[in-house]
Amino acid sequence: MSLCTPERRKLASRGQIAVVTSSIEPASAQGKQECRIMTEPAIEMTQAASGARRGRASGGGAARRAARTAVSIETARYIERNIPNLDVLNEEALAIIEANAETVLAEIGVSFVDNPDALARWRDAGAEVTGERVRIPRGLARQLCATAPANFTQHARNPARNVEIGGRSLVLAPVYGPPFVRDASGGRRYATMEDFRNFVKLGYMSKWLHHSGGTVCEPTDVAVNKRHLDMIQAHMLYSDKPFMGSVTEPVRAADSVEMAKILFGADFVDQNTVMTSLININSPLTFDSVMMGALEIYAKAGQACIISPFIVGGAMAPTTVAGTLTQVLAEVLAGVAYSQLVRPGAPVIFGAFVTSIDMNSGAPTFGTPEAALITYGAGQLARRLSLPYRSGGAFCGSKLPDAQAAYETANSLNMALLSGVNFMLHACGWLEGGLVSSYEKFVMDADQLGALHHMARGVDMSENGQAMDALREVGPGGHFLGCAHTQANFKDAFWRSDLLDYKPFETWDEDGARDTQALASVRVAKMLGDYQQPMLDPGISEALQTYIDQRKASEPDAFG
Amino acid sequence: MSLCTPERRKLASRGQIAVVTSSIEPASAQGKQECRIMTEPAIEMTQAASGARRGRASGGGAARRAARTAVSIETARYIERNIPNLDVLNEEALAIIEANAETVLAEIGVSFVDNPDALARWRDAGAEVTGERVRIPRGLARQLCATAPANFTQHARNPARNVEIGGRSLVLAPVYGPPFVRDASGGRRYATMEDFRNFVKLGYMSKWLHHSGGTVCEPTDVAVNKRHLDMIQAHMLYSDKPFMGSVTEPVRAADSVEMAKILFGADFVDQNTVMTSLININSPLTFDSVMMGALEIYAKAGQACIISPFIVGGAMAPTTVAGTLTQVLAEVLAGVAYSQLVRPGAPVIFGAFVTSIDMNSGAPTFGTPEAALITYGAGQLARRLSLPYRSGGAFCGSKLPDAQAAYETANSLNMALLSGVNFMLHACGWLEGGLVSSYEKFVMDADQLGALHHMARGVDMSENGQAMDALREVGPGGHFLGCAHTQANFKDAFWRSDLLDYKPFETWDEDGARDTQALASVRVAKMLGDYQQPMLDPGISEALQTYIDQRKASEPDAFG
Repeated sequence: MSLCTPERRKLASRGQIAVVTSSIEPASAQGKQECRIMTEPAIEMTQAASGARRGRASGGGAARRAARTAVSIETARYIERNIPNLDVLNEEALAIIEANAETVLAEIGVSFVDNPDALARWRDAGAEVTGERVRIPRGLARQLCATAPANFTQHARNPARNVEIGGRSLVLAPVYGPPFVRDASGGRRYATMEDFRNFVKLGYMSKWLHHSGGTVCEPTDVAVNKRHLDMIQAHMLYSDKPFMGSVTEPVRAADSVEMAKILFGADFVDQNTVMTSLININSPLTFDSVMMGALEIYAKAGQACIISPFIVGGAMAPTTVAGTLTQVLAEVLAGVAYSQLVRPGAPVIFGAFVTSIDMNSGAPTFGTPEAALITYGAGQLARRLSLPYRSGGAFCGSKLPDAQAAYETANSLNMALLSGVNFMLHACGWLEGGLVSSYEKFVMDADQLGALHHMARGVDMSENGQAMDALREVGPGGHFLGCAHTQANFKDAFWRSDLLDYKPFETWDEDGARDTQALASVRVAKMLGDYQQPMLDPGISEALQTYIDQRKASEPDAFG
Repeated sequence: MSLCTPERRKLASRGQIAVVTSSIEPASAQGKQECRIMTEPAIEMTQAASGARRGRASGGGAARRAARTAVSIETARYIERNIPNLDVLNEEALAIIEANAETVLAEIGVSFVDNPDALARWRDAGAEVTGERVRIPRGLARQLCATAPANFTQHARNPARNVEIGGRSLVLAPVYGPPFVRDASGGRRYATMEDFRNFVKLGYMSKWLHHSGGTVCEPTDVAVNKRHLDMIQAHMLYSDKPFMGSVTEPVRAADSVEMAKILFGADFVDQNTVMTSLININSPLTFDSVMMGALEIYAKAGQACIISPFIVGGAMAPTTVAGTLTQVLAEVLAGVAYSQLVRPGAPVIFGAFVTSIDMNSGAPTFGTPEAALITYGAGQLARRLSLPYRSGGAFCGSKLPDAQAAYETANSLNMALLSGVNFMLHACGWLEGGLVSSYEKFVMDADQLGALHHMARGVDMSENGQAMDALREVGPGGHFLGCAHTQANFKDAFWRSDLLDYKPFETWDEDGARDTQALASVRVAKMLGDYQQPMLDPGISEALQTYIDQRKASEPDAFG
């Protein structure tokens, strides 16, 4: 039964709601649910397109790329906010933090470790270099940042999945980095390449996820010097959403660029951004040669980097919000400025991975108010620099996808939406402080991301939105379930979870009294069972495999 | 081990965090945790005071009231926000909604059912009355609302627990109304008076809860016409925090006022607000005689009422945000105006209980983005009326205190903080759409309320907050754990849950791999075990019992 049917309309009078809800069969509700989702009009869904790539696609590549995809999977368009950001800092506070960050750069400086080329670049740009310490005169870093674009397009192999990063957009990407995975039946264990492929598939199947991410888990069963090849290949084969490149060695970044050229065509990659990769700053104030080496590769190739301090407040930054913001701004200014020294105009993102510390145990804590204040403040600082902003995520410290995980995650997701984040890594699947990629939490979080999409729409003030006709039709003591305005609007009126339980107690109890994790386990199995690989030109698949085989044969396996 | 100790300071170098956290014994961590909480300086804790009541206390009542409390239980002072509200409506949208609400009042009107006195009051005030329909000329309701105070003090029998309602304050009160309770060991069952007393005790023991609430559960083992006496008595005896009066019949409101006079002294109650009670509007646009009868009693006695539409969007209001806001504003304008017709200056709160509907099943849904947008907008409308605002709560539809419950609850709690709510009913313990008061969720939610307190502090921009000394001391590549600034600030630097698990995986696993519900069960038992009743003058206790006995003897039991 559903409001779609005339019977339901007749039944759905106010007094009968409780009775009606009790009589709904789960199977029929499920069927209607899918029907409803398919007709949801206001969230712009990007069906896998069969048309040619828009814009500057070069020659036969466009047709080839279009032919790669045939199976149609529903994905929401990236979020474009129609609500304001929450600004926790006033103008005076922002000015103080910006002045303090300049003081940090000029008087304390930053270290570029094992990187003579970087020191030479800084010296040439006018910085004072002593040993590996770089002191940047007031204003220089900010001036260098001016050539970085305020927003950019990251292209996907399916052009319908392209994302805009910057402005009022919000692009959602899954968890990054965990060495472990967990599911309800198998418990916690080291991640394998099979897990990696499963998470890519889940990401591809997730309606509210715009991006396939990067290291969705760390496949520990593949040699450490070769696993990046399998990971990039998995994103290319098992999804058609945009993805991230490897950063763990400069040579692996170079492999990522080469593989992207096979997938997109070399000319296209030269002229467009097809990867956004994660460059962490070794906070406080240290830029190591591995990360900077990867940054240099990507910047030279015109590929995007997130330049992101990794802050556990109290350990890698001061205990205070304003002090941490000062350090974050100084670090990002130096990192972004450096990217522009490598290649002016290279696309970059102002990153801030922020968590706090439990001062009793030393453990990082998530979903906390101090991290939220820093995230809100960093968003303001990023906007004043006209840079896209990366922060937030489905953060939690819990070992299980339980209430703790969900409290901490919801705190973090809401904060990320309202702080103006443009690129949210870790938007689903994060568990146990980032040590674990959780199958169940992946789909639980991915479902919650739908609420962010609806929240971001803001308030419709059109005549239909004002609903004065409905108020006049119903009047005092009536109900709105059957009125014309409701009939015209109910399909898209309210966000509806595809996972959570809305059934009456009795039905839920007869159904096995399952908690959210149990429902999520079922959903994971169904999604992986329903998965169909998006089409890809077999010539490209083969060329990727040949490249990987050659690279793997060129050096012995390394572990650890 | 804790950062308090010199050993910890030495151990807590950056590379050793993981090792150190693994070696912490749960028992020792627990001891340190309590130590830390007791020294937390920046949250102003209101210890049970032994001094005299400030202000206008009358005669011997002040000394008597002070003597009532001796056991010291730590309670945070109500929240005073130092962060902005999120305003989702611009000036134009607000003006449209306000104009539409006036149109609703003038052209559609509201119904005051079975209440000839109310109709007479409205006629005298200049409204057009036809049958029970009251059409209020444009501007009249808003003009009548002007005599309602922008904020007021609700007094507690312990003056240190008084709360300010309005302005930038946020007062937190527990769940209200469920006929069922649930705990992990006993499952779901009808609530009894013993459950009621337990929830009052848990509320009294909860550090972040400022208010004892009202019908924390519905004690179904006491006659429906007498249970209000036992409920009010329980709040008076088992807590010294402020509480709510009965509203289910006007005579029960009158009993509440009489009992308050016994507790506080008649003169004090005549001159001060000692109860805030919940008056629901029967949306759409209907004011029934039971609720209005209770409102009349309280308003005449100078006691506060929350005047609150009860909205399940799509059923009791239009499906759209702007349409619902129009109806909410019209209803509150009419209700508050009526309170001021009964007694100009009577303290009232602009209420908005808002949830959305699952259009597939007809079930109310919680923590949804549409309800959030309405809650943000209603806050803006309340502030433009200069009225205190009630909304939000630990809302969820889940049957269990699981991840669904926590996602939905955290969405709702964050929204309530940022929408400028001044009085949050249902701030903890709400489960299953309000059908169930959950023991475990009560303490889980109450713990999360601590995060709201810290978030509301905003950003400290003092010299200490800027932390430039710390940045200079540590420099590139160092760590902040041992620096002077951290040592001076760590105790209060970060909010710390008293419930959630921050232990390393191995310790947690050896400890039984417990989820949040299991941890909460332990905490519930400990809190009820540790509970000590706050002292009360035995003469007052006896007088309350005598009043209750007489009232119970005056009529037969009624059930149903």
